[in-house]
Amino acid sequence: MNSLPLDVKQMRDHARSIFNAGVAAVAPDTAVKKCCKRKGKYLYIDDHNYDLSHYQSIYVIGAGKASAPMAKALEELIGDNISDGLINVKYAHTEPLNSVQIVEAGHPIPDQNGEQGARLIVEIAKRATENDLVLCVISGGGSALLPLASAGLTLKDKQDTTDILLACGASIHEINTLRKHMSAVKGGRLAEAIYPATCVSLILSDVIGDDLDTIASGPTVPDSTLFSNCMDIIHKYDIGDHIPLNVLQHIQSGANGNIEDTPKSGDPIFDKSNNLIIGSNIEAILAAKHAAEELGYHCIVLSSLIEGETRDVAQVHTAIAREILKTGHPIDPPACILSGGETTVTLQGGGLGGRNQEFALAAALDIIGCNNIVVLSGGTDGTDGPTDAAGAVVDSQTLKRAISAKLDPMVFLNNNDSYPFFKKLGDLLITGPTKTNVMDLRIILVV
Amino acid sequence: MNSLPLDVKQMRDHARSIFNAGVAAVAPDTAVKKCCKRKGKYLYIDDHNYDLSHYQSIYVIGAGKASAPMAKALEELIGDNISDGLINVKYAHTEPLNSVQIVEAGHPIPDQNGEQGARLIVEIAKRATENDLVLCVISGGGSALLPLASAGLTLKDKQDTTDILLACGASIHEINTLRKHMSAVKGGRLAEAIYPATCVSLILSDVIGDDLDTIASGPTVPDSTLFSNCMDIIHKYDIGDHIPLNVLQHIQSGANGNIEDTPKSGDPIFDKSNNLIIGSNIEAILAAKHAAEELGYHCIVLSSLIEGETRDVAQVHTAIAREILKTGHPIDPPACILSGGETTVTLQGGGLGGRNQEFALAAALDIIGCNNIVVLSGGTDGTDGPTDAAGAVVDSQTLKRAISAKLDPMVFLNNNDSYPFFKKLGDLLITGPTKTNVMDLRIILVV
Repeated sequence: MNSLPLDVKQMRDHARSIFNAGVAAVAPDTAVKKCCKRKGKYLYIDDHNYDLSHYQSIYVIGAGKASAPMAKALEELIGDNISDGLINVKYAHTEPLNSVQIVEAGHPIPDQNGEQGARLIVEIAKRATENDLVLCVISGGGSALLPLASAGLTLKDKQDTTDILLACGASIHEINTLRKHMSAVKGGRLAEAIYPATCVSLILSDVIGDDLDTIASGPTVPDSTLFSNCMDIIHKYDIGDHIPLNVLQHIQSGANGNIEDTPKSGDPIFDKSNNLIIGSNIEAILAAKHAAEELGYHCIVLSSLIEGETRDVAQVHTAIAREILKTGHPIDPPACILSGGETTVTLQGGGLGGRNQEFALAAALDIIGCNNIVVLSGGTDGTDGPTDAAGAVVDSQTLKRAISAKLDPMVFLNNNDSYPFFKKLGDLLITGPTKTNVMDLRIILVV
Repeated sequence: MNSLPLDVKQMRDHARSIFNAGVAAVAPDTAVKKCCKRKGKYLYIDDHNYDLSHYQSIYVIGAGKASAPMAKALEELIGDNISDGLINVKYAHTEPLNSVQIVEAGHPIPDQNGEQGARLIVEIAKRATENDLVLCVISGGGSALLPLASAGLTLKDKQDTTDILLACGASIHEINTLRKHMSAVKGGRLAEAIYPATCVSLILSDVIGDDLDTIASGPTVPDSTLFSNCMDIIHKYDIGDHIPLNVLQHIQSGANGNIEDTPKSGDPIFDKSNNLIIGSNIEAILAAKHAAEELGYHCIVLSSLIEGETRDVAQVHTAIAREILKTGHPIDPPACILSGGETTVTLQGGGLGGRNQEFALAAALDIIGCNNIVVLSGGTDGTDGPTDAAGAVVDSQTLKRAISAKLDPMVFLNNNDSYPFFKKLGDLLITGPTKTNVMDLRIILVV
């Protein structure tokens, strides 16, 4: 334990290093290598082991913003054994690879490159036999980066249908139900293509709660929804006359039993299949906790599942920080409150910012003069909204400095304009792209 | 520790008994008797002692919704020594008293009874000499219940000025600054009247953070605002031509030094004065914690300072509960999460409910199928919004029951209509008036 009390500058440095420790723990290569160990001809993945000499071919496929460094880590472990492979990644999210091809594609808007890459990935999956092993590297963004429509449909059909569902207020669950039933990849369709090969999916979660069938739309995961559910949704919103005719026919055909439904839990397809979360928000939090404890802070992990309107969520966090100062609940200072997840921002203005910077700005308003609280909120991918910052770091004196600089915090907050506010104050958290993404990390230090 | 696992019904019973324990700890008479002990001719209050035989007269004055039972407790302790007294309470919030008169008055809208009672209270205060002891019993609602304008102003002048400030978007701090400078009681003016008698104020806090100068507008507490601040506010909103002329003249006169400003910290008035918080939200929480521990729960006190939009605050609470089930953070089950404070509801619909019932309804949506979570949110005064319920208790099966009963929770939530929803389900928390108020208490059990 370091000597305390600390000054605010030190606390800010601590917050940054705790954040960095959290992000480092979920770096794609670190996550792959923590989960996968090579010993001679064996590859140990979690509690399974795979005899590499047993397989005729080993393929690496997948998609996602972090999939290139995940594939690179696999190449470093078993590169000599990989026969072939292809992954779709976001433009500029590449790594130099040897056995695995990379296709750079559009995200968040899918494009032709993505479609072409997805087609090649499905071809590899179909080529794999029962004597082969297919390793999938799946991460956030994998849904947009693997855009392949079911036979008879086009990407445009899917997009038009999604737009109509959005416009009539369908829930995200309803939209995903339709999407999975218009796709040749999502909702377990990729696992279907891989079968009868052995399949191991290494999954970096960017989804609250780490639901396997949500991350990248669950290409290797059993789907619980049916074509008949899609028909119910089409009837519910009365959009049968609005969606493309071939989509309607496709769904009707499926509901009538003429197209096989997405693979379900219990299907033999999944007998030789294993889906593993290798990195997620809680792991980043726990690594950050470890780093904070090393620095002498008492730690409390609130939750990795935090959602809600950003400024209200910030208020709850600062209420806990102020209670620590007031009564020593829930823990005594020096304290570190940790949380993760992903909040939302209901836009009121046209400013520039992101949910993490908005969190920090709202928090700064709540901790004026509290000696001493430091609040850091950052996206683990290094990007917060459409800015070059990961988030921001504020302290009990931030607003004082803002007022000296003639910046009215309420004006910036109400205009969702946190980026210029923090840029002027020098309080941005700039990490550059981290090549991983397990949503956001919030660190609040109270001394 | 009781035998666990528990069924949901038991957990719901536990939540109710934990809530009741929290409320009981801040009952006005309990709070007074915990803080004040009589030993022979001495009254020990906190760490001071008062020789009752030393005073010529002992007066009890004050105002607030809980002030009658507070005065009753004082009568039970030192009734034989009380010379005279008068308190203003809300209609029907009375107790049978012997030496202290009760005036029932309007709340939240002040009325003539309140004004008349306030005038008599100030008379008693002025009558007290340096040989006398004045005990004040102050609780929530005391501001509306002690409506006495400064000399030359009327209640209507004050109300009109407040309305104008509200209409032009002035902050609550700005409004209170003006209010204190238009009052013969608020902002330490009552302490001024009591001086040179010895003054002890027993204060039950219904305010987040327990700021002494905010509870009941701080009648016995130093004020930090000035007449000149009032002029600044009038200029800021350019309302000099809109507020009543005699208010403007009164403020100008004060700013020019012709009326003495409200008493400040360091003023001799406060040398013989002591303001004591005898009950507050954190004490209710800690008593609830004790009760939960007795029932075998691991407890975490989040904060007594929780504010923010109700449904977002609920989301943060349920995220913590679900993390407990998922990873055992921040504490292992069986767990009890406790928090207090007062959230807000931005009205979207015209339904019937209150912030506690809305909290429970929003929480119910987040815990569907989580085995097992129980959420209780209740107002410690026994009243939530304009309903006869203190709040509601929900569990992981509440929504299932709602759907069976053909109640769509989202429709009720979006219409701020939580009361009929819970009334139909039998999930209301009904305690009747508790005669105390330290804001809200939230209890979340996770097993």
